[in-house]
Amino acid sequence: MAFESVPIGVHALLDFHGARGLEDLDFVESILRDAASAAGATILGAHMHHFGEGFGVTGVVLLAESHMSIHTWPEHDYAAVDIFLCGGSNLQAAIEVIEDRFEAQVASTKVIERGEARLSGERAA
Amino acid sequence: MAFESVPIGVHALLDFHGARGLEDLDFVESILRDAASAAGATILGAHMHHFGEGFGVTGVVLLAESHMSIHTWPEHDYAAVDIFLCGGSNLQAAIEVIEDRFEAQVASTKVIERGEARLSGERAA
Repeated sequence: MAFESVPIGVHALLDFHGARGLEDLDFVESILRDAASAAGATILGAHMHHFGEGFGVTGVVLLAESHMSIHTWPEHDYAAVDIFLCGGSNLQAAIEVIEDRFEAQVASTKVIERGEARLSGERAA
Repeated sequence: MAFESVPIGVHALLDFHGARGLEDLDFVESILRDAASAAGATILGAHMHHFGEGFGVTGVVLLAESHMSIHTWPEHDYAAVDIFLCGGSNLQAAIEVIEDRFEAQVASTKVIERGEARLSGERAA
């Protein structure tokens, strides 16, 4: 029987070199929260950690639609972001918030489809 | 001036279809904790959420070496895992723990290098 399959979620991996605010926990948390809001996602909890003066921060927002994370390395002038969203969330809006706020000199983005949902027909054995 | 560049972190994306225990929060949390332990990583916090009877769970462990997450969709027989590790953590050991515990019929893994650290020489302008 025919069926259509669609991804269950989309996972964007963003790499920022030359971004600002990499040592600022409140700034990084605000980026995560604002990106979640822009995506239309629901925050279940925000969990942040600062590695100390001169070092980076790491944080995750757990979402009803999966999660977003940021890890920063000021010593390498680098921030790694991932955004995993399912449902009708607006991934592009989240990416735009993060890109705008970090003001990075170099940014790259990979978007990877995750999982497979079958919309109609019987599941194959 | 010559320099060698190495990735700052490695990010593994694991997709499991036909995995067991997708509705069991304690089981999923134990997988994350055991995978972090196997990797030699330090857990800063574990944050879990259950979407209710018959639905999936979602969880993240925040690590000194970045993070691991699991999101499950029992209705699609699917679990999505990501493992982001930096430093000398043992990614392969973490992956083996998760694969063993989920006993999935179909699993796929992508490993993506994140960031760029320059080991020697001056940073280019």
